[in-house]
Amino acid sequence: MTIWRVEAMIMPKDGVNDPQGEAVHGGLKSLEFVGVQNVRVGKIISLSIEAKSEDEAIDQAMHMCDQLLANPVIETYSLTATQPSPAAKGSIA
Amino acid sequence: MTIWRVEAMIMPKDGVNDPQGEAVHGGLKSLEFVGVQNVRVGKIISLSIEAKSEDEAIDQAMHMCDQLLANPVIETYSLTATQPSPAAKGSIA
Repeated sequence: MTIWRVEAMIMPKDGVNDPQGEAVHGGLKSLEFVGVQNVRVGKIISLSIEAKSEDEAIDQAMHMCDQLLANPVIETYSLTATQPSPAAKGSIA
Repeated sequence: MTIWRVEAMIMPKDGVNDPQGEAVHGGLKSLEFVGVQNVRVGKIISLSIEAKSEDEAIDQAMHMCDQLLANPVIETYSLTATQPSPAAKGSIA
C-alpha cells in the first residue's frame, strides 16, 4: 500500500453567489488593486490516502467529495493525485 | 490588456495546527474512510486580473497575497496563471 496525496479543489459553481469572493474583491479594491475584475474563493483539501494505485486513491477521494467535502448543488470539484517522494517519509540530515 | 486568471493556493504551513483539517479527518473516519492518514484544509482564490503579461499578473497576485490574502506567519501560497480562452468572452450558439 502506498500513501497518495490527493488534492481536492472545491469551487463555487459559476452563477452561484460567492459572498466571500465579493468581500475579498472589496478588500483588494480598497488596497488599490484596480486591475482585478472578479474573485472567487474556494477550498483546497489535501488528503493523504493509503491505496494500492493512483486510480483507487482518486476513486476514494471522489466518494469523500460526494459524501462530505463538497456540496454538489452549489460546488464543483476537481481531483489531482501525486505520490509523495520517498524522502518525505523522514530522513536525518 | 488581457484578462489573466490567477489561482492562489493558500495552505497552512507544515507543523501549524489545522483544526479544520482535523475536523474533516474526524468526519471522514466516522464515514468509515479508514485509509485517510492526514487532512489539511486551505483556500483557493481565483482572481481575474487585467494585465499586459502573465508575469505582471503573477506579480500583482503576489502583492495581493502578501498584503491581504495570505498570512505569511502560518500560511504558504503558490500561484498559477492561465489566460482565459477567447470563447469564454461569450458566444451565441
